[in-house]
This record gives sequence, structure tokens and C-alpha cells, in this order.
Amino acid sequence: MKFSNRITNMQSSPIRRLVPYADKARAAGKKVYPLNIGQPDIKTPKEFFSALTSFDKEVLAYDVSQGNADLIKAIREYYKTYDMNFEQDEILITNGGSEALLFSIIATCDPGDEVLVPEPFYTNYNGFSSAVNVSVDGITTKAEEGFHLPPKEELLKKIKPNTKAVILSNPGNPTGVVYSPEELKMLVDVCVENELYIIADEVYREFVYDGLKYKSLGQFKEAEQNVIIVDSVSKRYSACGARIGSIASKNKELIAHVLKLCQGRLCVPTIEQLGAIELYKTPVSYFKEVNDEYKKRRDIVYQALQKMDGVICKEPKGAFYVAVKFPVDDAEKFIIWCLEHFDYNGETLMMAPLEGFYSTKGIGKDEARIAYVLKCEELEKAMKVLEEALKAYPGRK
Amino acid sequence: MKFSNRITNMQSSPIRRLVPYADKARAAGKKVYPLNIGQPDIKTPKEFFSALTSFDKEVLAYDVSQGNADLIKAIREYYKTYDMNFEQDEILITNGGSEALLFSIIATCDPGDEVLVPEPFYTNYNGFSSAVNVSVDGITTKAEEGFHLPPKEELLKKIKPNTKAVILSNPGNPTGVVYSPEELKMLVDVCVENELYIIADEVYREFVYDGLKYKSLGQFKEAEQNVIIVDSVSKRYSACGARIGSIASKNKELIAHVLKLCQGRLCVPTIEQLGAIELYKTPVSYFKEVNDEYKKRRDIVYQALQKMDGVICKEPKGAFYVAVKFPVDDAEKFIIWCLEHFDYNGETLMMAPLEGFYSTKGIGKDEARIAYVLKCEELEKAMKVLEEALKAYPGRK
Repeated sequence: MKFSNRITNMQSSPIRRLVPYADKARAAGKKVYPLNIGQPDIKTPKEFFSALTSFDKEVLAYDVSQGNADLIKAIREYYKTYDMNFEQDEILITNGGSEALLFSIIATCDPGDEVLVPEPFYTNYNGFSSAVNVSVDGITTKAEEGFHLPPKEELLKKIKPNTKAVILSNPGNPTGVVYSPEELKMLVDVCVENELYIIADEVYREFVYDGLKYKSLGQFKEAEQNVIIVDSVSKRYSACGARIGSIASKNKELIAHVLKLCQGRLCVPTIEQLGAIELYKTPVSYFKEVNDEYKKRRDIVYQALQKMDGVICKEPKGAFYVAVKFPVDDAEKFIIWCLEHFDYNGETLMMAPLEGFYSTKGIGKDEARIAYVLKCEELEKAMKVLEEALKAYPGRK
Repeated sequence: MKFSNRITNMQSSPIRRLVPYADKARAAGKKVYPLNIGQPDIKTPKEFFSALTSFDKEVLAYDVSQGNADLIKAIREYYKTYDMNFEQDEILITNGGSEALLFSIIATCDPGDEVLVPEPFYTNYNGFSSAVNVSVDGITTKAEEGFHLPPKEELLKKIKPNTKAVILSNPGNPTGVVYSPEELKMLVDVCVENELYIIADEVYREFVYDGLKYKSLGQFKEAEQNVIIVDSVSKRYSACGARIGSIASKNKELIAHVLKLCQGRLCVPTIEQLGAIELYKTPVSYFKEVNDEYKKRRDIVYQALQKMDGVICKEPKGAFYVAVKFPVDDAEKFIIWCLEHFDYNGETLMMAPLEGFYSTKGIGKDEARIAYVLKCEELEKAMKVLEEALKAYPGRK
């Protein structure tokens, strides 16, 4: 039996692909620091769980396809704190940010069309796109420049007749970059002038450090019809397993089209939405506390990296990732070596190799992503392990 | 701003499209019997809800992409009661049967490919397919023949070089047909001989009446590599709002490919899966009770329809639908007329017009689907309203 070309060509997740090596290392008695995956260890607000028991009907029926009206209201209130005003029919609830992304791509691109994405990028952008026959062209950004955008001329050169949208993760996964208001304005101008959609993946919106003020793409009036905001409770409220995301756009026609896709899959889980309503009521103090914790972790990781010979990275300003250029022949080989052949006092670590986060072939081979989602003490130990591993690795350049 | 052709061409749900007319009728003080949508009124087993509170971790983390191992085990046990043996790596948990369908189509068909589906069919088959650029060709079945399959020669004539799969809903939505073992064997032979996948939508498997023995497509050894079973807890356990479905196939390579799509969307809700595990432990007596109730309802609806002049339908043997040919110019017009201009003692009704359930243009215009998901007393009254409406409708033929 044959399979479709689109599924055959789809790459498996470079984040999850190395899991079997980690399992083996653990089975061999090593402690493995999981720096590979963005699963926060922060407690989910208790209100989520209590809301689950508040469901008082005897039949667990379908919810409406656009999503629970109270949840949409709660999200509207949340956006107001960022000076963004969405009407009730400008937001749709989705199965995680993942579905929001997939639906945004389907609604804006036909097979053969292209999306532009600053690379390295969240690999699932590529996964979703290729599953629906849309290609991804990377706008290369560099570790040496803190992964900021290239100048306008470079962006303009990338646009082809079949370019339909730009996907931007801000703060950036896997880079931790927070784009400046000027960079965003430049991007907005390019997209408005060229009638491109901007799919704004802002799921890490609260994770911005050093007192930087966050600018959302939803705040640019001139791009109201272009911007589609993809959002999720996963990282914001440490509720990845809830799978509640959303699409917000002032482009009502776009929302009406996406609603057809929502109707196709009927609805998002009825009860999880009740939990999500409570999440959106979480007081701002929660973010402050979480933010302080992540900043400490960022500092530990960044300061340790700074001291390692030959390691290149700029201080990341957001999310909970740092993308690092290592003095090694091949980051994937290095990580597998760490898991198979190395330990420091019985400990080793896992990271996500970055080559698969680029669409341009041949770059990123010496880069990896570190997710700082472990407690400070653990991170300190993990950084020590990394330092020693780099010294001992035979493929060091 | 332009949208993709695929989204522009996607039709909105013919089941949900008439909702605004029903809302208006209700606002005008009429009671509207909702016979349009397959939302069961049967109680969800309590164990589902208690399982939600059994989650005892502080962080609601991502689950594994293939789905909770215990839930997969529970589904394997369930399938054994149908003499189907699936291994742990032959089942994936999905966001409802909907996602199982979408992923099956993506994995087997490229843009420009085609799936064959007996029509009238569940309209979302068309929705999902067109969203990913796969076309649907209907194998026409008729009310007069109880919507059974045409002979093998007819099926063979339908197969083109770009035909990749057949989707079969058994018991059938919207028709209530239960295909005979001989019909299924014929279909299996056609698909095996022509290397077509069979996407078997068996979410109504337990809803079979009159002592008929259910034959699953998963029971045909010779088609093991062709059959992909799409399943869901929605109807079986009256848990539509849980959005827990699954894909099962002995074709391990297919499962491995679909797993890449599962990894793309990360996971299915962690806690809903705990509830679903409990659902699969529901004793068989539950099905018996539910089944008896639906049989009574089926009898009420079918007997009432039999007595109405000019109405054509054979006794449906499964699911909780009956597809009916009415003596009217246009079923959609008739339904809108019922909602806008008709009432019988202050009551009216809503059904799903069937034209949108066909891919062949120009047929099904005088047909509608009745979902018998109301209590017996209500159904009796609804049938009386229907009888009177048919007498009074100006577009009667």
C-alpha cells in the first residue's frame, strides 16, 4: 500500500526524535536533564482543576463550534490589557495553538503557496505546512545577531508571487528573541504593502524579561486585516495538556472562513473550556511570579553559556528557550554522544538539535535549543554537565 | 485580502446552517423539535466525570502524542469483544473521530486525489477532504433501496487512477443503513484488488437494531493493510463534548506516518483521556439499555413516517438517523417554511436537508435527515407536527 507524498515527505519531530536515546541512558542508570522540550514545570493554577468539577449537566454534549462564549469573553478581556479590542465574533477557540496554526495556514494558502518564517523556527510550522502542501521559506537569522530580523531589503527579496503569509513567533521559539517595535513595524509595512497575512504566534507573550515592553502585532491598526493572532493557554498558564488555543483577528471574513473548519471538527472539548475560563481570570501577580522565576533561570543558563569556550549566543529576552551555536561538528551527534557515551557524576543531558528548525539546507548543524524549564538548582547542575561534555566531546571543533 | 481557494470553496455545514431560522422561531415563541443534529440526550456514564477529578498532578503537562497508554489498552480490550486484535502501536488517540478522519485522508491522499463515498454521506467527509484538496466522488445509494450499496460492477466503474480510498460510515450517517456482511465483503474485495484504503467510520458500531449481528471492516483479515478504523467515544458513550477519538489499523506503517501528524499537534487533552479510560470500562449492560431506548425511538419515527402520504424510507437498522424522501419541491425550503411559517399548536421542527450530503449535483433535493435523539413522547409529538406540516406545505408535490 502506498501513502501520500505529503505524509511520506513529512519529517518526524526533531524535538521528540532523540527520546529513545534518553530512555536508554535512563535505563542505564544515568540522570538525564531534559532541556529538549518546552514543558514548563510551573504549577497550573488550581482554579483550572476545580472548574472541571463545576460541570453540572448529565450529558457531555457538543459545544458550539466557535467555542464557549464565556471563554471568548474572557479572552477579549485579557486582550484589552494589551490594548487590543476584539469583538465576540473575532475570536475562535481551537484545539491548542496547533489547530489555530493549521487552520490559519489552510485559510490563507493553497497547495503550492508559500509562507515566510524567520529561521530557526518552531519545527511544527513546517510540519503543518507540508501536511497541507504549503512550503516554508526561511528568513535566516543568526546567533551572532541574537536572531533579530534582517533589514527590509532582505525581506522584500524573499517575496514571490506565491508567498501568502509570514509566520512570526514572538517571543521566539526556539531563539528566545523578542522583536523590537521597530522590527515589527518594518515587518508590518512589508506585509501590508505586499498583501501578505501575518500569522502571529504569541503564545509566549508574557515571557519577556529585563523590563522590556511587549509589542503585539495585534496593536498595529494598519495591519488589522492582515494579522491573525494564534494563542494558547499552554505556556501562559502552564496548562499544555488542556489543549485550548484560539485565533483572533479583526478580519471578520477570515474568521468566518475558519469557522467552516471549526464546524468540520464540531467543537473543542466542552469541559476543558470551563477550566480555561478560570485560567484567564488568573491575577496578574501570577505572571510576575512566574516571570521572575524564568528570569532567574535564563540568567543561570546564559551566564553559564557565556563562560563556555567557543559557545555563541546573545542574551535571550523572552520565552524560555535559548538557541546556542556550539563548537562541535554536529549538534545532533553531540547530543546523542552525551546520552550514549558521556556522563558527569552519573548525569547527562538532552537538548533539541536545531538543524531541523531551518528550511535552508546546511545551516544550523552546530546549533541546539535549550529549554530552561527546570528548577534553578537543576539548571546549574545541567550547565556544569554541558560544560564538561563540551570539553570531552571528540567531535569538538 | 484574498483567501485560499480551498477555504473559499468549502461549504458551510448544512446541518448547522439553518440554526438561525430555528433561533428566530424560538424567539417567536414556538417550540422547535431539534431533529437536525446527532446530539444524543442519553446520560454520559458518571465514571467519566469522576475520573476528571482523579488527576493528581500539579502541572497539567502534555501527554504523549500517540495518546495515553492506558486508554489505548482499554480500546484494545474493547476491540477484542469484536474479535479484533490490535497491538499497542496500532492505535492512536485523536481529537474526536473528526481528527482521525482528517489525518486518514492526509496520510492516504495527495491534492488532486479522490475518495469514494456512498452518498448521501456525513457532510464533513466533504469538508475535511476539500480543506486538504482531495475530492469526493459519491457512490449514489437510494432511499427506495434502503441506501444499500450498488453491485460490484457499479463500484468498479467509479475507480479512477487518482482514487485512493473509500470512506464508509457503518452504521450509516445520515441513512441509518447497516451494511450486510456480503456487501462489506464485496467492498473489501474491490478495495484489496485495487489497492484502495478503506476508511471505516464505525462510531455508531453499537447502534444496531432488530438483533442484527454487526460486522466490522476490521474483521476482514484479507484487508488488514487497507482498513483504517475511525472511532470515537462521542456516540457510543454519549460523550460528544469529550472529543476523544482514535485511529486503529494493522497497517503499522500507516500508523507511523499518522503519528507524525499527531506529533505536530503535540497531544490530545490529558485529562479528557482519563475520563475516556473509564468510559471504555462501561459494562455491556449500558449498551443494551441505550440500544433498547433507541430502538423504541426508531420504531416511533419509522412507523409514523410509514403512515405519511408520499413519504419514502426503508426501515433504518442502525445509528440514530433516518434519511427520508419527502413529497416536497425542496426539503430545505420545506424546513425553513416549517420554522418561519408553520406551527401545530405552537410547535414546529427542524431537520437536516440532505442535498448537501451528496456530491452528485441535483439529487437529494427532496430528502432530509431526522435524528431520533429525543425522548419517545417528544418524538411522537414531533412526528405529528411533521405530518401536519407536510399536509399544509404549499410546495407539496
